[in-house]
Amino acid sequence: MSVAVVSEKNPYEAAIENFDLAADALDLATDMRNMIKYPERVLSVVLPVRMDDGKVLRFDGYRVQHSTARGPAKGGIRFHPNVTVDEVKARAAWMTWKCAVVNIPFGGAKGGVTCHPEDMSQAELERLTRRYTHSILPLIGPAQDIPAPDVNTNPQVMAWIMDTYSMMKGYPVPGVVTGKPIGLGGSLGRKEATGHGVYYTLESTCSHLRIPIKGAKVVVQGFGNVGSAAAHMLSSHQARITAVAESTGSIYNKDGLDIPKLMRHKEKTGSVVGFAASEPITPSELLSMKCDVLIPAALENAIHGENAARVKARIIAEGANGPLTPEADRILEA
Amino acid sequence: MSVAVVSEKNPYEAAIENFDLAADALDLATDMRNMIKYPERVLSVVLPVRMDDGKVLRFDGYRVQHSTARGPAKGGIRFHPNVTVDEVKARAAWMTWKCAVVNIPFGGAKGGVTCHPEDMSQAELERLTRRYTHSILPLIGPAQDIPAPDVNTNPQVMAWIMDTYSMMKGYPVPGVVTGKPIGLGGSLGRKEATGHGVYYTLESTCSHLRIPIKGAKVVVQGFGNVGSAAAHMLSSHQARITAVAESTGSIYNKDGLDIPKLMRHKEKTGSVVGFAASEPITPSELLSMKCDVLIPAALENAIHGENAARVKARIIAEGANGPLTPEADRILEA
Amino acid sequence: MSVAVVSEKNPYEAAIENFDLAADALDLATDMRNMIKYPERVLSVVLPVRMDDGKVLRFDGYRVQHSTARGPAKGGIRFHPNVTVDEVKARAAWMTWKCAVVNIPFGGAKGGVTCHPEDMSQAELERLTRRYTHSILPLIGPAQDIPAPDVNTNPQVMAWIMDTYSMMKGYPVPGVVTGKPIGLGGSLGRKEATGHGVYYTLESTCSHLRIPIKGAKVVVQGFGNVGSAAAHMLSSHQARITAVAESTGSIYNKDGLDIPKLMRHKEKTGSVVGFAASEPITPSELLSMKCDVLIPAALENAIHGENAARVKARIIAEGANGPLTPEADRILEA
Amino acid sequence: MSVAVVSEKNPYEAAIENFDLAADALDLATDMRNMIKYPERVLSVVLPVRMDDGKVLRFDGYRVQHSTARGPAKGGIRFHPNVTVDEVKARAAWMTWKCAVVNIPFGGAKGGVTCHPEDMSQAELERLTRRYTHSILPLIGPAQDIPAPDVNTNPQVMAWIMDTYSMMKGYPVPGVVTGKPIGLGGSLGRKEATGHGVYYTLESTCSHLRIPIKGAKVVVQGFGNVGSAAAHMLSSHQARITAVAESTGSIYNKDGLDIPKLMRHKEKTGSVVGFAASEPITPSELLSMKCDVLIPAALENAIHGENAARVKARIIAEGANGPLTPEADRILEA
Amino acid sequence: MSVAVVSEKNPYEAAIENFDLAADALDLATDMRNMIKYPERVLSVVLPVRMDDGKVLRFDGYRVQHSTARGPAKGGIRFHPNVTVDEVKARAAWMTWKCAVVNIPFGGAKGGVTCHPEDMSQAELERLTRRYTHSILPLIGPAQDIPAPDVNTNPQVMAWIMDTYSMMKGYPVPGVVTGKPIGLGGSLGRKEATGHGVYYTLESTCSHLRIPIKGAKVVVQGFGNVGSAAAHMLSSHQARITAVAESTGSIYNKDGLDIPKLMRHKEKTGSVVGFAASEPITPSELLSMKCDVLIPAALENAIHGENAARVKARIIAEGANGPLTPEADRILEA
Amino acid sequence: MSVAVVSEKNPYEAAIENFDLAADALDLATDMRNMIKYPERVLSVVLPVRMDDGKVLRFDGYRVQHSTARGPAKGGIRFHPNVTVDEVKARAAWMTWKCAVVNIPFGGAKGGVTCHPEDMSQAELERLTRRYTHSILPLIGPAQDIPAPDVNTNPQVMAWIMDTYSMMKGYPVPGVVTGKPIGLGGSLGRKEATGHGVYYTLESTCSHLRIPIKGAKVVVQGFGNVGSAAAHMLSSHQARITAVAESTGSIYNKDGLDIPKLMRHKEKTGSVVGFAASEPITPSELLSMKCDVLIPAALENAIHGENAARVKARIIAEGANGPLTPEADRILEA
Repeated sequence: MSVAVVSEKNPYEAAIENFDLAADALDLATDMRNMIKYPERVLSVVLPVRMDDGKVLRFDGYRVQHSTARGPAKGGIRFHPNVTVDEVKARAAWMTWKCAVVNIPFGGAKGGVTCHPEDMSQAELERLTRRYTHSILPLIGPAQDIPAPDVNTNPQVMAWIMDTYSMMKGYPVPGVVTGKPIGLGGSLGRKEATGHGVYYTLESTCSHLRIPIKGAKVVVQGFGNVGSAAAHMLSSHQARITAVAESTGSIYNKDGLDIPKLMRHKEKTGSVVGFAASEPITPSELLSMKCDVLIPAALENAIHGENAARVKARIIAEGANGPLTPEADRILEA
Repeated sequence: MSVAVVSEKNPYEAAIENFDLAADALDLATDMRNMIKYPERVLSVVLPVRMDDGKVLRFDGYRVQHSTARGPAKGGIRFHPNVTVDEVKARAAWMTWKCAVVNIPFGGAKGGVTCHPEDMSQAELERLTRRYTHSILPLIGPAQDIPAPDVNTNPQVMAWIMDTYSMMKGYPVPGVVTGKPIGLGGSLGRKEATGHGVYYTLESTCSHLRIPIKGAKVVVQGFGNVGSAAAHMLSSHQARITAVAESTGSIYNKDGLDIPKLMRHKEKTGSVVGFAASEPITPSELLSMKCDVLIPAALENAIHGENAARVKARIIAEGANGPLTPEADRILEA
Repeated sequence: MSVAVVSEKNPYEAAIENFDLAADALDLATDMRNMIKYPERVLSVVLPVRMDDGKVLRFDGYRVQHSTARGPAKGGIRFHPNVTVDEVKARAAWMTWKCAVVNIPFGGAKGGVTCHPEDMSQAELERLTRRYTHSILPLIGPAQDIPAPDVNTNPQVMAWIMDTYSMMKGYPVPGVVTGKPIGLGGSLGRKEATGHGVYYTLESTCSHLRIPIKGAKVVVQGFGNVGSAAAHMLSSHQARITAVAESTGSIYNKDGLDIPKLMRHKEKTGSVVGFAASEPITPSELLSMKCDVLIPAALENAIHGENAARVKARIIAEGANGPLTPEADRILEA
Repeated sequence: MSVAVVSEKNPYEAAIENFDLAADALDLATDMRNMIKYPERVLSVVLPVRMDDGKVLRFDGYRVQHSTARGPAKGGIRFHPNVTVDEVKARAAWMTWKCAVVNIPFGGAKGGVTCHPEDMSQAELERLTRRYTHSILPLIGPAQDIPAPDVNTNPQVMAWIMDTYSMMKGYPVPGVVTGKPIGLGGSLGRKEATGHGVYYTLESTCSHLRIPIKGAKVVVQGFGNVGSAAAHMLSSHQARITAVAESTGSIYNKDGLDIPKLMRHKEKTGSVVGFAASEPITPSELLSMKCDVLIPAALENAIHGENAARVKARIIAEGANGPLTPEADRILEA
Repeated sequence: MSVAVVSEKNPYEAAIENFDLAADALDLATDMRNMIKYPERVLSVVLPVRMDDGKVLRFDGYRVQHSTARGPAKGGIRFHPNVTVDEVKARAAWMTWKCAVVNIPFGGAKGGVTCHPEDMSQAELERLTRRYTHSILPLIGPAQDIPAPDVNTNPQVMAWIMDTYSMMKGYPVPGVVTGKPIGLGGSLGRKEATGHGVYYTLESTCSHLRIPIKGAKVVVQGFGNVGSAAAHMLSSHQARITAVAESTGSIYNKDGLDIPKLMRHKEKTGSVVGFAASEPITPSELLSMKCDVLIPAALENAIHGENAARVKARIIAEGANGPLTPEADRILEA
Repeated sequence: MSVAVVSEKNPYEAAIENFDLAADALDLATDMRNMIKYPERVLSVVLPVRMDDGKVLRFDGYRVQHSTARGPAKGGIRFHPNVTVDEVKARAAWMTWKCAVVNIPFGGAKGGVTCHPEDMSQAELERLTRRYTHSILPLIGPAQDIPAPDVNTNPQVMAWIMDTYSMMKGYPVPGVVTGKPIGLGGSLGRKEATGHGVYYTLESTCSHLRIPIKGAKVVVQGFGNVGSAAAHMLSSHQARITAVAESTGSIYNKDGLDIPKLMRHKEKTGSVVGFAASEPITPSELLSMKCDVLIPAALENAIHGENAARVKARIIAEGANGPLTPEADRILEA
């Protein structure tokens, strides 16, 4: 699912606009806004990396610490061609607010490298990751700023970051990243944690709105860690997942897709496309399907000014970071 | 003298263009260019600072490390409304090349805060400086990156930086800045060093071109530390300083200005304007005066595509950082 | 309740006298006494602090580490006009012994600043606290010496200490103080912990002496964190709190005071005085009341040679640090 | 020469009184006085030390940092029965002022242990020194506070301090003390430096007062490092050293003592007493001798209210720290 | 029981041989073998230690880090005349594999000093331990390499190591060793942990082989921490411990020894020899006794090529490190 | 020139034997011998290194700190197939003694890796060097232990060591090695320093023995940095260098070789063999040539029990480390 069409607004401007809406609602003084609105530190680094063919290419990387007022900064590293400094700044701001809302003693940060990881070998990704880690090293640490996986980064990437950092210190520092491989000190259940969080939030909301989970019609946009784990939990509580969208294609089954089977299908083929008991559907059809719950679990700004009016879900359960633009918010609230 | 008119090109693009010219001349391989062309780290910080009236304003600050390949990074901190991230990146790159050309074991860095220091009280400047120092602290240090004064920063500002850094360490760390007050470990002769450097370079050039310093007609653009010290050395070797330009106005005396007296006049009045034995002149007239030596010692890009053709000096002795745009270079070489 | 009358003996001499009594009882060798009797380190600092009126006043501060033999030193910071180096040394020694008696792996320390905090603004207290923290900084740290609140210091003061220390390190160090605000990593239940400890100790003692808590007549001297939490626990177990003393006045109700209501009264008015269902009483009357339990929960040396003989309680449950002088001990034991 | 009789005033009070005299003369504002008058940190430590007979004795030690405003603190460690916290505070203040007067970038500190070093074995002194060093360790360091020898401490004691500090760091840190043995990085000429300084100051004064050094009659009180080196320089410039005082006795020769021979005599016998070409004299006679120059080079307060009036020297060249009490100053000025 | 006879192979060669067997079974690539087979670091230190008679003797000490690939290295310190560098290398390798097999995030290390601890006073052992700790200090630490007790080292030795390390750091670092005294932060149950582990493993095995623990005939070689705790657990589950061997002698009772009584006997007399309800037996007889379970819980290589064929136990439960040589393995498997 | 034939004694045993001879001569007490005779720390590391063909090979590396009693340890890193732990221990001991003899404040260390550097690519050498540096990192540092070049290591290898160490610290640490490239902070004149030292020593000796340098007949064994620089100095003082030996062959010219030309010949061809104005000679002939001065400047133990008797030089000027075995010493002295 492309984010290209949603570029009416850059993510940082959207985040700042959201901040102002919230600050207005709280009647927050200008002084205080000036203290907590903007990112404390934005570090841009240039990464010359040797490719497998011997050439040195240049990549741009970022680490943004939006706020450390409530504790060490915390936030994931994204490897994606759409990574820009403003995109990272927006995600860092969201991290500050997310940590504060659930009252955990962490501030907000995010990082990223502009690259096409799917075109790179493991060796190239390792060299890129190690170089990036070395460049942002003065800012990170278990008590300062703790990276985590994000889009296109995984436990292996975290292991490289941890190893690079640990070599600098001379001993293993597992606390410098979360999302490590279990064998290096990673947490059990981490992979499914976000998806399960979506489910538990949804369970509260449904109970509040008196919509039974059992039999509820659910559409899931994005079938990565978050979307698939949420779908799995929902289907095991007998919700009906009628449609699933992915960047490679979207599928539909009006009686509900068999999620465990779909997960195995994706594991084998790398995509949900071609799943036996399903028919193809366009992303646009999927978003405008009538359903009880729509779970946008892909990238930010997936629901925006141009498609928001077509959404027909009773509940939108946000599984991605900032999947609705402020404009979409206004349209949907109206 | 305003730099506003010279904005045909941002300084970073100009620096990169210069790099490419030099790299082409050296037939430098693409890989090597990718390794040394771009700044290693660009740190942007947001500085909420309490003003004397109790309000908190937001300032933007930067520290750019262009290269640490040859040693710790080194470069000044500028407080100026024209400070932008690209301007700082350009100045950092020039530092790398300047240190390398004279073969001292330092890399290049620069910093700056976008502000109007002339409208701020000492207390506000101190709070701004301390906050800025705290924000860039993970990147600086005697063995990592050593700030220095630049436009609108002085030994007092360096003392605040040193004190903020030292408080973090728990003991005095004079090595974290150069350009400190003498009493805190600063170097004797530092204030005049750049201007004297301009003189010694000029002496070599004049000797090479067989132009006697004695009696040479010199025009000086900018009468700060650099311009005044160069003028003083030249006049003590009996050169004739016929015109001096400053942002507050420019003056002229065809028989040569009495530089020691002019320096005392400026110390008293804050400007060269109104100096007894002189008449006013426009910046444009000054630049196009026929002379042996023109010393641009103000800001970067002072000589650019639109005024370069009017320059009638036999020698341009660069006292500022990057006072000629690449376009000016081309025009003057032609 | 003033400690002024009890100055027959300075607290440090009293502590040393207590030590010798205990050491005699244990037949402790002179060598061992010389090793554990005296404070390891006594740091006195002079604190010039700018007041809100612009003047710089001088304050005296102290941090005493009595013993680190059993682990990092631990103990509170007091802001009080009666703080003297000997008073702090005494309290530090008591901390060593308290930690050892309950077998937790900490040594003993205490700190304080001689000042009248009730006459100081929040801004003045903050500057005083930050200056004090900076001055004692080489001695404290999560693994060395961990301050905590004491008389007139509270979670806000701890937050300032933590922030000053953290700024020096460059990242948040919550472990440098206990008694922080919950939001910065403080412990739930800490406020009531000492008072609850008094209750649980009392429960054991009463059970041992076969005095039922239910219906027991209790007199509480001091109605701060400790006294009020102990009283609250006792009243919820149906003890009768018949009298409560505070520095602002003391009150009495022979049928027992309604403690939850009294706590709300104090929160509103800042004092127990004027509580509806009560009559005033002098401190001296209160101390000599016949009761099952007397809880001295104010300052040290509250029961001394001149008033000890008048105490008519069956149990004295010590809620303050060292509320009995050695002389009082002897009188009460006789 | 005993300092016992001079205890009309404790040294710290004398130092503070001197400060106030100077501050009054400078018309120094109260705020500034509050900032620079008092010692920043006074650390008192208790040192249990095992004696050669197996017993553990308790010693009191001190390290006072009077000011670090001008750089790392600097000052000697004294082992003497008269060491008290006030004596150390006074000497630390003098160090601040001495460093400032000669404009070297150091603040002032001093330390000491109350003990009778002449009754202790080398092994006992080593254990005492190591324990003391360990106790003051958080405050000292090459960039924080650098001890040096003082009365009864010597290069060997400095070597123990350096070794104790270095063991804590894991590698040699010669910069933590001055006055080390040459073989461990000590400075050549250090031993004689103070005495030579006395000579050079005297040379200026004599030239100013038109008193020829050659033939000048000089009385020296104290024949340690300072007094003997000053006497040696003076005698090699043909001054006549007619009397020398020491704690073990004083000697006199109206034609001048042969200083090189006297130095060898003292090296052999440990005292100036019994020197061939001399006759004994009482300390009181010595002080009241008519002479051109009197050099008090023993301990502080040697010339005080009760003996000042008897001094008949034209110049008093102070070779010790604070050898004149303020009262003596007043008497001598009158 | 002497290990002298088993020296057909040095322990390191045996460990490497075992590694190769396992690597062959896993079909491990040569590259990978080269990365994980050999010890990463072998530190040999020479320890001059002053004996109680004043003489300085030289001891050899070792610390070997076999692998830190899975986390900080972990392993005990042995004081024994048979300690050699190869013996320590073997034990370190076993630690790597043991930690990996039970999947805890630690690598493997071991240490040792070649000495006869039973002939040394406590003071000598303390000096030896402190010197050894100082020498290996750059390699150890809570995040790098954590020593523990092994043969002839105990909680007291760990306390000395912790204290030496902590003095170097300036504050207590309990995490630098495990096996500390409880009072310094040691773990409850640690002493019996290995023996209980032997029991629980045995319980699984017996259940698997359908051999009831109740009534099982057990022979225990070595009655230190491991052997006695395993025997105690087994006897409390009604197994019959028929024979116990120690270096001082071995005993036998066909109906089972009363283990709690035997433990008290050993505590009193220092040996199992002479226990009332038992008869003596030779080590050789003991090893060849018919039994259900044989627990070698003494030193490595206790069962080797020359005695393996005589073993008649149904289960060998290894309580020591590497008690079977590879040759013994082959013989017993056949 | 092969060292293979000289293995009658391993270098460490030879060093220890030399120590004992010197200690006997000094009548050194056993205690003191035990403190300074043996290496303080011997670190052996295993280095898995990836070769250019993708295979991982295992190398053995060593770093030995013989003594740090007089200051940080100092000594070179050798890459050579003959490197063994005993060879490194011997060279480290010699470093201690060499530094002590010339009274510079350094202790002695040495390091090495057993490898055939001439068969390895630059990339392989870089990976080996970086891995080795990482493995010995806890022991080295500007204040602890400072490596330097030795046989087969050069400024490039030092640059790799410095870079690996600096990356670990996060900033450049030029002080961690000597013998760096000039551009990274290396010292001018270092390359020739040892050879010039040989010359200056020889000059003193010749003057003492009244042998004129001019015309002296000199034989040089080893024509690397040391041998060639010594030869160059000697020839510029008109000595006659009649023979030069190298591992690739030896040459002879009875009238003296033209050293500057020979140096250019070697630079071009990599060997002295085939030099125009010379004839070949066997190593054995060379050693037994009659000459004034023989300079063994190759490897240790070059002159040993079997060839010493044939040496016919009047002076042996040792340019290598330990070029004579103790047996050779005895033979030559006789």
